[in-house]
Amino acid sequence: MEIKLAAQYQLDGSAGTGVGWATGISKYAQGGITVRIACVLDVDYEDSEFKQPYDGFKNQGHQVTIVGLQAGKELKGKQGKVTTKAETGIDQVRPEQFDALFIPGGYSPDHLRADPRMVKFTKAFFDTDKPVLAICHGPQLLITARVVKGRKLTAWITIQDDLSQVGANVVDQEVVVDKNLVTSRQPSDIPAFIRESIKLLEKVPVGTR
Amino acid sequence: MEIKLAAQYQLDGSAGTGVGWATGISKYAQGGITVRIACVLDVDYEDSEFKQPYDGFKNQGHQVTIVGLQAGKELKGKQGKVTTKAETGIDQVRPEQFDALFIPGGYSPDHLRADPRMVKFTKAFFDTDKPVLAICHGPQLLITARVVKGRKLTAWITIQDDLSQVGANVVDQEVVVDKNLVTSRQPSDIPAFIRESIKLLEKVPVGTR
Repeated sequence: MEIKLAAQYQLDGSAGTGVGWATGISKYAQGGITVRIACVLDVDYEDSEFKQPYDGFKNQGHQVTIVGLQAGKELKGKQGKVTTKAETGIDQVRPEQFDALFIPGGYSPDHLRADPRMVKFTKAFFDTDKPVLAICHGPQLLITARVVKGRKLTAWITIQDDLSQVGANVVDQEVVVDKNLVTSRQPSDIPAFIRESIKLLEKVPVGTR
Repeated sequence: MEIKLAAQYQLDGSAGTGVGWATGISKYAQGGITVRIACVLDVDYEDSEFKQPYDGFKNQGHQVTIVGLQAGKELKGKQGKVTTKAETGIDQVRPEQFDALFIPGGYSPDHLRADPRMVKFTKAFFDTDKPVLAICHGPQLLITARVVKGRKLTAWITIQDDLSQVGANVVDQEVVVDKNLVTSRQPSDIPAFIRESIKLLEKVPVGTR
């Protein structure tokens, strides 16, 4: 079954030429779009870093699909406060079915990046300049996908150091927006993370539905 | 209170000159030494990767001291099968008080490397060529301590990739011995990890007691 895209991207290879995420110029509709977000998740995620942005994005009218390592797997947070389920498995999805990627923190990202299909899925969002929203340990998945070199971002303190060592431009602040990429460090950054993520999602290009 | 060393090291700056861990030549007594091992540990360690080597080293007559982020902190494994306690805190110890370092896996190493004192403590064992025994996620602490460049080692699959990206020579096998460094990947490697660690500990140089 073919799933229709919520928004089709206008890929014109214009990175750095004045039209794109960096500038927000004119090719993007402002607000009112339902964005289809893939939330990649495994057990022992940081409860609040999954649940609060998840609720925040849904409250904006966006669709969030929990993509796990196997469909139907029960996913409990490391604090034991939140339990959810993988709505679909990584073997059942293609990046073309989504407009944005959300990577909650905790121990989940290190589990996800052990699966090459999850790494390939992640990389595809960078290849097509779609929004990627990663908090805390989320950027571990980006390290394995080899998409952080030269990118400006933040992460959990220990991952900041890993990122520096592999050539990222690391900034220690509550939220960093670099073109298609929104990153934050920890649970106390969640409000800023949601705010900037929602702003970025409003810039998702309009396409056919 | 000054703690006496179990073995005093003969540091002669001879790395690579034919006497040392690489060759095992003559400066080391074979067996019978009680080695003082610092086991650095925080919550959510991989239960078996702490307990089995810990017991194995003690059964050989070695002394193992659990060094935590705070003395007295209760330390429960991620499987919930093992609970122990930090016998001392990182603020109370100096690397000179120990002959070897043991870093169990699980989520513990990422907690430990968030504390600069733990990173400095770890680096000191490399600076003095003392045995370092690290399994699974243990080498995360070595990445932050910046001691892996050019070293031959292994680790948990996701950490293998991090290690490659920061210039380590990564090998995917059950145990890797490179001079003072013994590393393994996962719980199924524990017997090989204990075996090679014990062999290395037998080579700890004889000194005053």
